[in-house]
Formats: sequence, structure tokens, C-alpha cells
Amino acid sequence: MSLEMLIQKIKPLNQVAMTEAQRHLDDLTKPPGSLGVLETIGKHLAGIYGAIPSATPKKTIVLMAGDHGVVAEGVSAFPSEVTLQMVANFANGGAGINVLARHAGVELVCVDVGIAGNPPDLPNLRRCKVAYGTKNMARGPAMTQEQAVRAILTGADLVGELAAAGTGIVGTGEMGIGNTTSSAALIAVFSGMPPADVVGRGTGLNDRQLERKIRVVEQAIAVNRPRREDPLDALAKLGGLEIAGLTGVILGAAANRMPVVIDGFISGAAAVVAGEICPLAKEYMLGSHLSEEPGHKIMLEYLGLEPILMMRFRLGEGTGAALGMFVVDAAVKIMNEMATFSQAGVAGKVSGSDG
Amino acid sequence: MSLEMLIQKIKPLNQVAMTEAQRHLDDLTKPPGSLGVLETIGKHLAGIYGAIPSATPKKTIVLMAGDHGVVAEGVSAFPSEVTLQMVANFANGGAGINVLARHAGVELVCVDVGIAGNPPDLPNLRRCKVAYGTKNMARGPAMTQEQAVRAILTGADLVGELAAAGTGIVGTGEMGIGNTTSSAALIAVFSGMPPADVVGRGTGLNDRQLERKIRVVEQAIAVNRPRREDPLDALAKLGGLEIAGLTGVILGAAANRMPVVIDGFISGAAAVVAGEICPLAKEYMLGSHLSEEPGHKIMLEYLGLEPILMMRFRLGEGTGAALGMFVVDAAVKIMNEMATFSQAGVAGKVSGSDG
Repeated sequence: MSLEMLIQKIKPLNQVAMTEAQRHLDDLTKPPGSLGVLETIGKHLAGIYGAIPSATPKKTIVLMAGDHGVVAEGVSAFPSEVTLQMVANFANGGAGINVLARHAGVELVCVDVGIAGNPPDLPNLRRCKVAYGTKNMARGPAMTQEQAVRAILTGADLVGELAAAGTGIVGTGEMGIGNTTSSAALIAVFSGMPPADVVGRGTGLNDRQLERKIRVVEQAIAVNRPRREDPLDALAKLGGLEIAGLTGVILGAAANRMPVVIDGFISGAAAVVAGEICPLAKEYMLGSHLSEEPGHKIMLEYLGLEPILMMRFRLGEGTGAALGMFVVDAAVKIMNEMATFSQAGVAGKVSGSDG
Repeated sequence: MSLEMLIQKIKPLNQVAMTEAQRHLDDLTKPPGSLGVLETIGKHLAGIYGAIPSATPKKTIVLMAGDHGVVAEGVSAFPSEVTLQMVANFANGGAGINVLARHAGVELVCVDVGIAGNPPDLPNLRRCKVAYGTKNMARGPAMTQEQAVRAILTGADLVGELAAAGTGIVGTGEMGIGNTTSSAALIAVFSGMPPADVVGRGTGLNDRQLERKIRVVEQAIAVNRPRREDPLDALAKLGGLEIAGLTGVILGAAANRMPVVIDGFISGAAAVVAGEICPLAKEYMLGSHLSEEPGHKIMLEYLGLEPILMMRFRLGEGTGAALGMFVVDAAVKIMNEMATFSQAGVAGKVSGSDG
């Protein structure tokens, strides 16, 4: 599929189904609106699926892994080799995302879209390598536009395949040493905020290293002169292969009328790019947690997403999305399992209340 | 058991176990501290249990139900009969808390500690009625101190029984038309904030009704002159039977070295009273969600609890605690199922990083 065809498949939400869901929610034994976010999500799901879902959907997190040439500038507390090592950890089930995905009943699919080395054969690892990591964006473009598009289509195609195999909701996850630097550069460009306001400590930088990271992002923007109105240009120059892959996952979810739960800061950068490529895609996104990266709040506001979990996470991998998917399942069950006022014989509000 | 004996059973957390838990958490394959709240909870649980728990504990929410004489002042959008009707709904499994408790793997025990009517025989309903609702606190004390103490001991005894039957973590829930009014009065007294800052719309009041509710709380405080330094006096004069019952649940959890997940605004009022009666009890409390009631944030700050879920809930019943217990289970699994750096063959931080 081409990127143009992918974008054309993305349609608006079903407003009729959302109105019906709201009517149903207001008939359940609770004060109207008192289940807050669960009601918002329930109505949103109806708009995406075209009806109130009758059961919790099969849940899959797509974890895209890729390396970043900009690590040469000393922007991360961990060396690039950790990307590959952690992918093996994911395959063996010992990482944070494995634990939380199992806990929330979520399947995990890992994708090598741009690891700098060659991972061994591992269960649940898809080999879709577009390149052995990006180039150093502080010296020139991280990728070619052709590479960025290939990574996007890799993500979108994978989601199409998952949808055909029964997945009903997708979450985003990533692994890539250096990718908070890339994400900060992208949100700086799209939001117009100065790098100092959106760059954070990532996996654990000290003050001096944080200063250096800010300078590197400023330099990457100055060297590459990304065009804000051309999201593919900005993505190629400042992004990462895993970020491009997740942009494709998000566009693919929207094209397949599936909700996509956006994890943290790096996933948020992919969501911003997806929303710039196709604004309608934003209607398929659900927020999960608010991370510790200072740029994440700016991103969520830019996307119009509401964070529901205040976990102080700064791990990525899809850890926030996994917990968020548990909350989405709760919304589905509320719509299917709660009694109505008439079923339960519960009195409604006293006259004069306008709720 | 007497209240004095109950309080004497409450001991400080095990600092050695907390230090060991921190060491273990720092050895897991993630940047130190990057799982945020899950790490905080994990360490906290070790301090409560005296060791890192090796499996997720059996989870029970105690839902205390009671009626409020102050409803005669027109402070609620729903009539008092709804308390009894909703208890039947809980027994039949059709309420919000039933759905969320099932979803999170939590057992639910309902207690009639002060419903104004007589519920029929219902599964999972404990009959521990102390009175047929409280008196109207706008005209005089809601309860006698003897009633308040009986309700507290009812809650504490029940938790002791649950602990003996295998429960390892308790959540709080409540049902009682009018109980946001009572809770607002309690937090106003203990925090010293004016009623206008802590009174909210409850299940859905309009502006005129909200004004009336504020006046009623002001009047209840003026009429009763509760002694801030005597928590039992304030509880008896302004509280509810279900609030007193939950105060006992919280003290009982602490006395049995179990964590207790505090639900929303009404549970928070019970937690404030429990903390005033025995400050050490606060060490056993875990926050869950931040509710829409304006006084809830003030309460959580007063208690030193961190809300982890931003659900915009204003339903009570224990709905926030149920979701919070899922997060607590996640913390237990993180401590038990994640690989260490050496197990996974993952490199640590590069030199010079100070995390």
C-alpha cells in the first residue's frame, strides 16, 4: 500500500454510534457522567467501531526498535548496544513491558525496524529492518524520506495484518537508545517551543548532560532546517526509524478503524507526526500516562489527548499503554455489564436537580 | 477489641525490608526509578508486609453503606431511598463497582452499617447496623460518640476477619446519599479550609443547590462546634456511619499490616479521621484516583497520598480503589517477574551518568 492510499482509508468517527453510546451511558445506575474518563472512552470506542463493542477487544502492543546516530553526541545515559540487548530481554519476557502486558492481557509484538546490530532469531520479533540505525541528526538528516516512508508503511502493514488476525485495539511501544532526543526535536519543530522547554533527562542525565542534549537538539534543527509544514521532511531529518514505524502503526490503526493507545514521549512524537500527516488520525488516538519528560505535556495538549495515569514513568516500551489498555477494557465492561435504572429498580434524580 | 487495643496494634513500616526492596528495584532491567509510582508502591508494600511480596495478594473492597439525616436539607440530587436500592444493585452485580471489581480481580463485601431501611437478605451483604441512618447534622450531632466507636470497631473487626481468611490488601468503598456533605464538613474542620473551598456538586447539584450545600456545612459546623483536636468528637458530630465504618476498616488494615487503597472523597474523609486517631495508620494508606470533588485534592495533600489515576470519577462505591488495586498488583509483578541486568545480559549506564 502507498502512503496516499493509507491516508485515504482514514475516515471520521461514527457520530450516530457515539450518540447512542451516550444515551446508553446515561441510562446506567450512576449519576450521569460520574464515571468520567470511562464514559468518555466508551463513547469514543463506539465512534471508532461504529457501535458499542459487545466484548473487550483483543489487545496488541507493537514495540518498534531502532537506533540513533545522534547517540555519538553523548545524549544518552546508556550505550546504543542496549537497544539490541533489550530486544532480547523483550523476547525472553523479562522487561517491564512484558510484565505489564501480561498483567493487562496484552500481546506484544517486537519489530526490528532499525536496530544498529543483528538480533538473533527470537520469538515475537519481526525483522523489518529499514537501516542499521539513523545517521547523526546533529550533522545532517537522520534518514532519507524514502526510508521514513518505508518505516511508516512497515508499521501500517503490520497493523493491517494484526487486524486481520483479530486484534481490535493497538498500543504503541518503542526501544531505541537516544530516542528522547529525536522526539524532543520533533515536538520542538511542530509546537514551535524552544528545545530547552521540551528536552528532558531521558533515562537519567545529570545537569551538564541535559545542557548538552539541549544544544544537540538546537544544532540538529539549525543544521537540518526541517519544514514544519512538511511532516515527512521533519520526520526524516529529525526522527528515528522506530518513530516512523510507530507513525505507521497509528495511521494503520486509524485506517483499520481501531483505537490506538499512545504510550509516552516517543510514542507521542510519532502521534504528532501522524496527526500532521493526517489530522483525522487523531480521532483514533487514546491517551494513557503522563511521563516525566517535560515535553510530554506539551505533546498531549498539542494532540488533544487526556492522560489518565500519573505513574511518573520514564521507561517507554509501551508500559503506559499497557496499563491504559486495562482502563479501556474497563470502559467496555461498564457499557456491557452495568444495570440500567429500570433493571435495578433504582430511583433517578429528585426533581429540580439538573446534574 | 477496644479502640485503644486497635490503635496499639499499629506499628511503623519495616525500614530494612524497604531498603532491600529498593536495592532489588535498582537491579532490574530499567533505568533506576523509571517505573515511577510502581517502584514507590513496591517499596511501600515491602515496608508494610516486612518483605517483598512473592505473589499478588488477595484483594477485597469493603463497601460500607449508611444514610444521612442531613439529606432533609436538600443537599443531594438523589433521595435517601437510593442507598438501599443501590445496595441491592451491588448484591446483584449490576453497579459500577461490581464491574470494576470483577475486572481487577477484587472481591466485594457490602456492609449495612447504617442504612435508613431494612435491606432484604442479599449475598455478600453483612448486617452490622448501628443505627437507621444519622441524625441531621445541621440541627445537632449526627451520631453519639458511642455509635461512632461501634461503627469503627465494626469495620476493624471485619478487616481482621478478612485477614484471617486470606485477604492481603483492602480497598475502601461506600454508598450513602448525602455523604459528600458530611465528608466536606469533616475535611473543612481538620484542614481549616472554609466550606466553600471543599464542598462540591456531589452526584450533580446545580449552582443554587451547591450554594445551599455550602450553607448547610457552615451551619453544621456552627451548630456542633466540633473539637478539631478530638477526632472522635468531630466524626460523631459531622460524620456518617459508613464513614466511621471505613475509619475502622483503615485502622484495621494498619493493625493487620495490610495496605489499604483509599478510594475517593468520602473514603478520604474516613482516612483523614483514621490518621487523626492514629498518625501511624497513614503509613498503610495508598492513594488511587483524584475525584472531581474540589475537597479531594486538599484531602490527599493533607494525607500525603499521591493520586495515580485521573479518571474524573465522582461515583464513589470504591470504583477508584478497584482500579488502583490493579496498579498495586502491577507493582508486585514488577518486583517478581522482571529480569535483572546480569540475568538479561543488558549493559548498565555509561560512566559519567549519575541517573
